[in-house]
Amino acid sequence: MPKKYTGIYLDYAASTPVDPQVALVVAETMQQVYGNPSSIHGFGLRAKSILDEGRNLIAAILHARPDEIFFTSGGSESNNLAIQGVAAECRKPGNIIISAIEHPSTLQTCRYLKTHGWEITQLPVNGDGQIDPAELDRTIQPETALISIMHVNNEIGSINDIETCAQIAARKNVLFHTDAVQSFGKMPVDLSKTPISLMSFTGHKIYGPKGAGVLFKRRAVKIAKMIHGGSQESGLRAGTENIPAIAGLCKAVEIIQQRQNEDRALAQKLGQQLRELMHLKVPRAQQNGSPAGLPDIQNYAIPGIDNLSFLMGMDLAGIAISNGSACSSGDISPSHVLQALHLPEKLQNASVRISFGRFTSSEEIETAVQAFAHFLQKK
Amino acid sequence: MPKKYTGIYLDYAASTPVDPQVALVVAETMQQVYGNPSSIHGFGLRAKSILDEGRNLIAAILHARPDEIFFTSGGSESNNLAIQGVAAECRKPGNIIISAIEHPSTLQTCRYLKTHGWEITQLPVNGDGQIDPAELDRTIQPETALISIMHVNNEIGSINDIETCAQIAARKNVLFHTDAVQSFGKMPVDLSKTPISLMSFTGHKIYGPKGAGVLFKRRAVKIAKMIHGGSQESGLRAGTENIPAIAGLCKAVEIIQQRQNEDRALAQKLGQQLRELMHLKVPRAQQNGSPAGLPDIQNYAIPGIDNLSFLMGMDLAGIAISNGSACSSGDISPSHVLQALHLPEKLQNASVRISFGRFTSSEEIETAVQAFAHFLQKK
Repeated sequence: MPKKYTGIYLDYAASTPVDPQVALVVAETMQQVYGNPSSIHGFGLRAKSILDEGRNLIAAILHARPDEIFFTSGGSESNNLAIQGVAAECRKPGNIIISAIEHPSTLQTCRYLKTHGWEITQLPVNGDGQIDPAELDRTIQPETALISIMHVNNEIGSINDIETCAQIAARKNVLFHTDAVQSFGKMPVDLSKTPISLMSFTGHKIYGPKGAGVLFKRRAVKIAKMIHGGSQESGLRAGTENIPAIAGLCKAVEIIQQRQNEDRALAQKLGQQLRELMHLKVPRAQQNGSPAGLPDIQNYAIPGIDNLSFLMGMDLAGIAISNGSACSSGDISPSHVLQALHLPEKLQNASVRISFGRFTSSEEIETAVQAFAHFLQKK
Repeated sequence: MPKKYTGIYLDYAASTPVDPQVALVVAETMQQVYGNPSSIHGFGLRAKSILDEGRNLIAAILHARPDEIFFTSGGSESNNLAIQGVAAECRKPGNIIISAIEHPSTLQTCRYLKTHGWEITQLPVNGDGQIDPAELDRTIQPETALISIMHVNNEIGSINDIETCAQIAARKNVLFHTDAVQSFGKMPVDLSKTPISLMSFTGHKIYGPKGAGVLFKRRAVKIAKMIHGGSQESGLRAGTENIPAIAGLCKAVEIIQQRQNEDRALAQKLGQQLRELMHLKVPRAQQNGSPAGLPDIQNYAIPGIDNLSFLMGMDLAGIAISNGSACSSGDISPSHVLQALHLPEKLQNASVRISFGRFTSSEEIETAVQAFAHFLQKK
C-alpha cells in the first residue's frame, strides 16, 4: 500500500491533490459500475448513464451541447486530438498559428505536423506573457487552418484574452482551439457567447483524477480521430471509456463550479500573501510574467540561485515547488516560456514556479517563503 | 453515489469486475500519491516509483525488460500505437497481414492505413476460428512490414498459435504484434523465448481498472508516437501518467499471476459445466468456434432466436450476456467474427456470447442456463 508523502505541496500546476469527494466517487464507481458502457444489458446501461450524465453536466456548465463533449485520457491527448484532428481533415497542409508559450503537447504536435508540410507560426508574447490579439489578426493567412492559443500558461500563469482571439478567428473563418487545462474552473468560459471551436481540459488539474480529460468540439467542426476501433465517443475516440475516472472528473467539475467563489477568493488571498512575503523575505526575487496573471501560479527569478539546487534544497526541507513545467521528465533545459519572455539565460536557470490551490493554507505559504529565505541566507 | 446494479454478470469479455484488492490500491493511490511523476520533488518521485515498480513487475512476469513496457490508456490505444507506430516509421506504405477476426481497434486502424496507401491482407480462419500458420508463412511478401494476429478472440474465445506465428515472422524478418487483451493472465507468454515484437493488453479485462493498458515493445523495434508532448513513457506517449490506474493494473497483474492455477481451474470447471448444461437444457444451441478455445468465452448459435430479443429477455431476468463484442456501441450489424466462420446469416443473428470469470459461481451458470431454457420454452 502506498504511504502518503507529506510536506508542503506547492506544485498544483503540475497536478492537484484529488478532492476527497472525488476520490470517493471514483472508488465507489470502480467497485459498483464495472459494466462496459457499450454493452446493452443493465450493467452496461448503468455505466453508460454515467457518461451521459457527465456529458450533460459539463455541457451545461460550458453552455455547450452534450454531443460536443468528448472524453479523452487527459489534456495532452485532447490537445493532440484537436490539432492533429483538424490537420488530418485538411486536404493539404496549411498554416497553424500558436503562441510561443504553448504547452509541450501543442508545441510538439505542431513540430510533428511541420515534418508533414505544415507551416507553424509562433506568435511572440509580451513581457506579461500574453500574445497581442491585433498581431494574431494580422498574422492570419488564407492558408491558416487553425489557431491554438492557451488560456492560462502553466509556467507563469499569464492569461490570454481568448474571447477576443476567438472572435478574430471566427471573423476570418478560421478554427480556434484553446488549451484550457490551467484555466478551467478558474476563468469561466461561456461557449454560447465565445466562438471557440475546440477546447481542452483535464481532471488532474481541477482536483479530479488523472486519466480523464475532455475535448469540447463544436458540432459543425469536423476532426479526424487518432484512436481507431469501436464507435465510442460518437466515433471520435475508440476504446472502453474510463468510467470511474470520468465519474470522478465530472464530480470535480461539479465541485469546482460550486466552490468557484470560495476557491478564487482563497487564491487571491494566498497569491497576495505570497507576493508580499516574497517581496519582504526574498527581496531580490522578480516575478516572471505579470502580477496580473492567475494568482495561483507564480514564477520567480531569484538572481544568484541555480534553480535545480534550490528545488532540491526545498525538497529536503519538505517543500515541493517546481522549475517550470513537469511535462518534460528529466528535462532540465531552459524553459521555452521564460525564453519567450526574453529573460536573460542566467535568470531562466534561476527561476522557480510556486503554484497552490484549494488545500493550501496561509501557514504553508509562510513556512515555504521562510524556508526560501533561510536557504538563501545559508548560501 | 452510484448504486450497484445487481444480477448475474456473464459478460467478463466486455469488462471484468474490479478485484477488491485492486480497487483498494487505486483508491489509496489516488488519495495518497497525487504528485506528477515528472516532478523532481518527493511527491513526484513517490509517483514515479509506482511507474518504475509496475514496469519491473510486468517485465518480470513477461520475461521482458522494464524499458520494454509502456503504459497507455488501454487496449485500443495499445493496438493503435503498435500498428500506426510501425506504419509511421516506414518510409513508404507496404503490406500488413492480420486475421479476419481481429478486434475492431486492429481492423479499423488497418482500414485507416489502407486509405493511406497500405495494403492489408486478411487471413481467413478455420471453423475453429484459428488462422493457419502455414498460410501466414506463404502470405508474407517482401513488402510486409507487420503481422498482427490476436492471441485469443474476444467473441468466440478461439486461440491462435502465436508462438508459431511469431517464429515465422522472425524468420522472415517481419515485425509481429499480438493483441493479447483477452489472453493475458490466461495463456502465459514467455517473451524471452517467443520473438513477439509488440504485444497489447489492458487492465479492465483482468480485474484491473479501466483507463490503463500496456504496450510491450521490444527494444530494437522502432515505432512512432501518436500523442506528442512531454517525454513521458520514454518519449513514446505524452501525457501525465494515470498513476492510480497503473498502480491498480499492476496489482491486477500480480494477483492474476498468483491465482493463475486457481483461476484456470475454475474456468475449466465452469466452462465444462456451461457446455454440458447448454447441451442438456438448450439442445439446439451450437457452439460457434471450438470447444478447444478458451473455456471462459463461449459463443452459441441458438437457431430460431433473434439474439437482441434474447439478450433483452435475459436482461429482464437479471442475466447479462452479450451479442458478441461490446466495442461497437449501438452497432447491431452482424459480427465480422461469425461471418469469418462462414456461419449462415440467420445463425449470426441468433448467436450470443457468454463469458465469465473469477467471481462467477456454479450456481450462476446453472441459473443462467435455466433462464435461457425457460425463455425459449415460452416462445
